[in-house]
Amino acid sequence: MREVAILGVGQIPVREHWELSIRHLAVEAARNAMHDAGVERIDGLYVSNMTSGELNQQRQLGALVADYLPQHGVEAVKLEAACGSAGSAMRQGIIAIASGEMDAVLVVGVEKMTETPGKTTTAALVTAADADYETPHGITFVSLNALVMQRYMHEYGYQHGDFAPFAINAHANGAKNPNAMFRDPISQRAYERGRMVADPITLFDASPIGDGAAALLLVPAEKAPDAVRVIGSASATDTLSVHDRENPLWLAASEQSVQRAYAQAGIGPVDVDLFELHDAFSIMAALSLEACGFAEPGQGVRLAQEGAILPNGRIPIATMGGLKARGHPVGATGLYQLAEAALQLRGDAGEAQIPDARIAMAQNIGGSGATIVTHILQRP
Amino acid sequence: MREVAILGVGQIPVREHWELSIRHLAVEAARNAMHDAGVERIDGLYVSNMTSGELNQQRQLGALVADYLPQHGVEAVKLEAACGSAGSAMRQGIIAIASGEMDAVLVVGVEKMTETPGKTTTAALVTAADADYETPHGITFVSLNALVMQRYMHEYGYQHGDFAPFAINAHANGAKNPNAMFRDPISQRAYERGRMVADPITLFDASPIGDGAAALLLVPAEKAPDAVRVIGSASATDTLSVHDRENPLWLAASEQSVQRAYAQAGIGPVDVDLFELHDAFSIMAALSLEACGFAEPGQGVRLAQEGAILPNGRIPIATMGGLKARGHPVGATGLYQLAEAALQLRGDAGEAQIPDARIAMAQNIGGSGATIVTHILQRP
Repeated sequence: MREVAILGVGQIPVREHWELSIRHLAVEAARNAMHDAGVERIDGLYVSNMTSGELNQQRQLGALVADYLPQHGVEAVKLEAACGSAGSAMRQGIIAIASGEMDAVLVVGVEKMTETPGKTTTAALVTAADADYETPHGITFVSLNALVMQRYMHEYGYQHGDFAPFAINAHANGAKNPNAMFRDPISQRAYERGRMVADPITLFDASPIGDGAAALLLVPAEKAPDAVRVIGSASATDTLSVHDRENPLWLAASEQSVQRAYAQAGIGPVDVDLFELHDAFSIMAALSLEACGFAEPGQGVRLAQEGAILPNGRIPIATMGGLKARGHPVGATGLYQLAEAALQLRGDAGEAQIPDARIAMAQNIGGSGATIVTHILQRP
Repeated sequence: MREVAILGVGQIPVREHWELSIRHLAVEAARNAMHDAGVERIDGLYVSNMTSGELNQQRQLGALVADYLPQHGVEAVKLEAACGSAGSAMRQGIIAIASGEMDAVLVVGVEKMTETPGKTTTAALVTAADADYETPHGITFVSLNALVMQRYMHEYGYQHGDFAPFAINAHANGAKNPNAMFRDPISQRAYERGRMVADPITLFDASPIGDGAAALLLVPAEKAPDAVRVIGSASATDTLSVHDRENPLWLAASEQSVQRAYAQAGIGPVDVDLFELHDAFSIMAALSLEACGFAEPGQGVRLAQEGAILPNGRIPIATMGGLKARGHPVGATGLYQLAEAALQLRGDAGEAQIPDARIAMAQNIGGSGATIVTHILQRP
């Protein structure tokens, strides 16, 4: 199987982009990635998105983005796995290059969520949950995560304030990222006074939606010896309904995909210099750290409290703001994570740079852990 | 690149399946394919679907179908390219096996369209068109095709009745397929008296929506020397808006994908024994025959009038009813086409069997020709 390298990285700021339609968001990030790579013609295009059918009355984003790039005629398709769509698209891009079918693959994640006349984003997002066994009970995505967080606090004896380090770290890091939606650091006091959303989740435990797009240009590693390499790539699934899991506090699909990716890369948690995890909610950051082997079950919050997740800590997370501060344009998020990880390894992360980062990991989660995709990248 | 074989075929009848949720439709077809293949564990799952976000309030079908198969933990994702979703999913399944990443891949197409309280299927389907430049003019998918058909009739001097052979052939063939939605042959007189939908498209020029699911189990060809082989696989795109094309009567993405597939297979149109084309509307059947080299531009209708498309003709089409009579559960259609083509090559097509079929082609179209995927299959 051919190894894959990331030759180009493209992003646009996560914002309320009312002046741009979904095609323009995607095309701008995609062109940035192609320009960064110095590539003018691609062999394949994978677009990721979750909600454009309802929120933008637009499907078939593969052909649409190909049309407007323009890369007329190019093979293109859209992938969806809820908030894990972009990691899944990256995975297909890697497989396409590995197959020998394509030599230059563009992977673009895009979501336009803030201008949706007559539709509620909450209703579009809850399609990631089980429509027969979860949604009919009136659950939303934030309330589902609130139930999990309640259980975690009960099981391991935490208070709400104990989760503050996740939000404080993310916002401090987001302040250094020009593409982040929120660029103001927050204090412990601000965290503790956060407005309640769904007990115990407050405003500072939940990531914001936004409009955004991020893209990567992939090539066979042998053609780009100086580019960031993909040394691990794996995807796994779990039950869609959280109540169907033996242990709702264990992300089995995270463990499964990360263990496979570690094995491919020939590394373990101790070798990872930074981890772009899926902190859609504070509780998901804690559970991800545990499932990926950085902390024992119930100790993810403690790890954060000890400062290990800070830029100078043992395992820096959300180094450019994470979902919490960079923002969470759902179908684009996994590619923002990978773009940020690649920039860190190139030494192009600006003020947010983690010194001497050699190995970075990115993990993208769809639903409450039903689809989890892990990628491990290495500095050239 | 490893060659790919179709080891298992699964379908359910296209119907109004009010008693089954979308997960059950998909799982039934998928299990049929696994049982047919004698395979109990898969390495990857590709699900295709177009409208489940709006019509079933359900996304993340990859994880959902994996959960209920059950194939816990397996890598899974959903692909979408409007009505070309299933052909696109097949394409990814082939690439995944070719890459060496997977040895047993399940590709499942599913759509549940007939039980959609408070939502209109027409509104969900028009998301395949351009939301900025087509949909705002009040266009629907049938009216878009009506404009193309008008232009074709004007350009080449046809009357509406000239298109009758497409509908008559499809319904005659559907009568022999137990999975077809409509199993009654129709007469020329019935065709001519068809109720008007969007001038000149009548009820008998338009395929019916339906609930359905079809699946294929793919393996490396070297592991299944007696199974149907995939000898050509290609996908191409065109502008999303029909008015952006130099010639709205030429399916450029069809030509591009079919030429690539012919080259891979080392064959030409003359070698194809049957062609499962995308007859969502009569006009699309004519345009497909022309773009794939079976007729000169403007001669697709004449080819049908000469009887060449009949089961005993030069190039049998819609051999098990096509979209017109088997039904068009949009995100599943491309896999019904491939399932039917595979059954023909195995000699398992029952009453609809084309004698001594050696090479079959299936072409799946998303939107009005924006995404077109072609596969060529060969008898073992």
